[in-house]
Amino acid sequence: MSTPSRSSGEFSFIAWLRRQVRPSSKVFTGIGDDAAVVSIAGDHLLLTIDALVEGTHFEAGEASLREIGRKAAASSLSDIAAMGGAADYVLVSAALGEGCDRAGMEDLYHGMAEIADEFSVELVGGDIVSGSKSLVVTVASVGHMPEGKQPVLQKGARKGDGIMVTGELGGSSLGRHLAFRPRLREAATLTDICSPSSMIDISDGLLLDLSHILEESGVGALVYEEAIPVSDAAAELAKRTGTSPLEHALSDGEDYELLFTVAPEEVVKLTEGEPLGVRVTRIGEVVTSGLRLRRRGGEVIGLEPEGYEHRVG
Amino acid sequence: MSTPSRSSGEFSFIAWLRRQVRPSSKVFTGIGDDAAVVSIAGDHLLLTIDALVEGTHFEAGEASLREIGRKAAASSLSDIAAMGGAADYVLVSAALGEGCDRAGMEDLYHGMAEIADEFSVELVGGDIVSGSKSLVVTVASVGHMPEGKQPVLQKGARKGDGIMVTGELGGSSLGRHLAFRPRLREAATLTDICSPSSMIDISDGLLLDLSHILEESGVGALVYEEAIPVSDAAAELAKRTGTSPLEHALSDGEDYELLFTVAPEEVVKLTEGEPLGVRVTRIGEVVTSGLRLRRRGGEVIGLEPEGYEHRVG
Repeated sequence: MSTPSRSSGEFSFIAWLRRQVRPSSKVFTGIGDDAAVVSIAGDHLLLTIDALVEGTHFEAGEASLREIGRKAAASSLSDIAAMGGAADYVLVSAALGEGCDRAGMEDLYHGMAEIADEFSVELVGGDIVSGSKSLVVTVASVGHMPEGKQPVLQKGARKGDGIMVTGELGGSSLGRHLAFRPRLREAATLTDICSPSSMIDISDGLLLDLSHILEESGVGALVYEEAIPVSDAAAELAKRTGTSPLEHALSDGEDYELLFTVAPEEVVKLTEGEPLGVRVTRIGEVVTSGLRLRRRGGEVIGLEPEGYEHRVG
Repeated sequence: MSTPSRSSGEFSFIAWLRRQVRPSSKVFTGIGDDAAVVSIAGDHLLLTIDALVEGTHFEAGEASLREIGRKAAASSLSDIAAMGGAADYVLVSAALGEGCDRAGMEDLYHGMAEIADEFSVELVGGDIVSGSKSLVVTVASVGHMPEGKQPVLQKGARKGDGIMVTGELGGSSLGRHLAFRPRLREAATLTDICSPSSMIDISDGLLLDLSHILEESGVGALVYEEAIPVSDAAAELAKRTGTSPLEHALSDGEDYELLFTVAPEEVVKLTEGEPLGVRVTRIGEVVTSGLRLRRRGGEVIGLEPEGYEHRVG
């Protein structure tokens, strides 16, 4: 699951939930990280589940069923990528509204199959139920840690680490939110060439997802304004919203880029020569506490980790 | 997943879906059985996903959120039982309606935890999204095959095999549908003491679930009227519906009993001395083709595999 941070009420529910669950020798990381890390028959498995809900993640008519299926599978696999894992299987359950016909179901499937095929993941379960008032597409993904690799958790960031992101940020709602690819290959290369101390995928917005890493790791962050890779879409969206491109890059959700921390000596391995096949930017550094932005002029200001709330309208 | 047989349209969609999925050396059983059987890191895993949908599986107010959570987890684990597997992990995603508050979320969780605790299964993922018009609770379960055991598929029934059920059937809607226990322990004992040739859990009704076994195995069945273990609830419900207790036992859904076939010489191992800790009844025999009922008087009539359609009202 992506950290289910859609509202403060849900935040606090997840905190409550984590307190309920007994420690177990079989569960290395349970509720709260991008995916659970569990033991089964002696191996480390990655397990994650997430739903796309009409009215919350999309509105009817805003996206085609093919796009919704594609996005449901891609965002689930993004959680496996954020652990540094390899994805193996996808299970899907769709609760369909009255208006969804056979052609719609096929479209939904084709969208998922597009992603599954691209990443050599097998679609092994499909439960379809009609009669829901809202379309709800739920995807569970199963992955594993490649031989010799450890899962990259949200906790683990250390003071002095560089804070890194792949790609460019902001304005995802103009199109990227339906077209992104899960960063599975980039995460595999990343964990081949260095040892990230923490990682998450950006689903709720850079600052909000960064705040998850900070909270889990018990550290703070200083973010450099001039380093934020603001996307063209963020600039485009800013013309319509009156919010600055920078703010879109900091707070928009659904970029599904990787946000991670690495030891300072490893930063250069990632920022020179584009070894991941995508731009990687150092956007700041891990500090003892707090969440602050260093403006272009050198002034340092406090930031609130406000993110995209996955709420339409 | 339970075979998603809620309507003929969904039946035919699943048939279409099975044709879409490429054969894979890693997937032993994909879409269509109670759970998928897959390979990961050299082991056989069982994977299943299912949703409970308000308006289809239950109506708001008809069951408490605790009961709905309990049922969602129990019916998912019943699919692992129906493969003869051991259950390990449960992942949950809940799309909540506007009226669901924090107390409701906690109730939902407590219902799941009740089942998870009883069967020593770990609840490792929890995704919560608000804003759905219908409550949709989706559970994915992960299990494995114990050392030396093979998954029991729906295909595998052979002519002459005894057709067996656990427990008593019919009238589940009077209470059992919210209170049943997944037959995990019974399935484990069953596969310890004999080798069932096919198995399914009764979610859609005896005849409909039996017809899945027959179709997958390419065989038929002769069912003995006098042997059907008609529950008291079926008799009770019959007084209200005007349908006979037998018909309720044959067609009501959500008993979540095990329906399986065994070689004729193994029948007695199961019906004498109650080795599974629950009544096991031989209700018929596998024949070459067709689905027929032998009446008490000896007359043999054809049956339609009509089942419960998981549709309320």
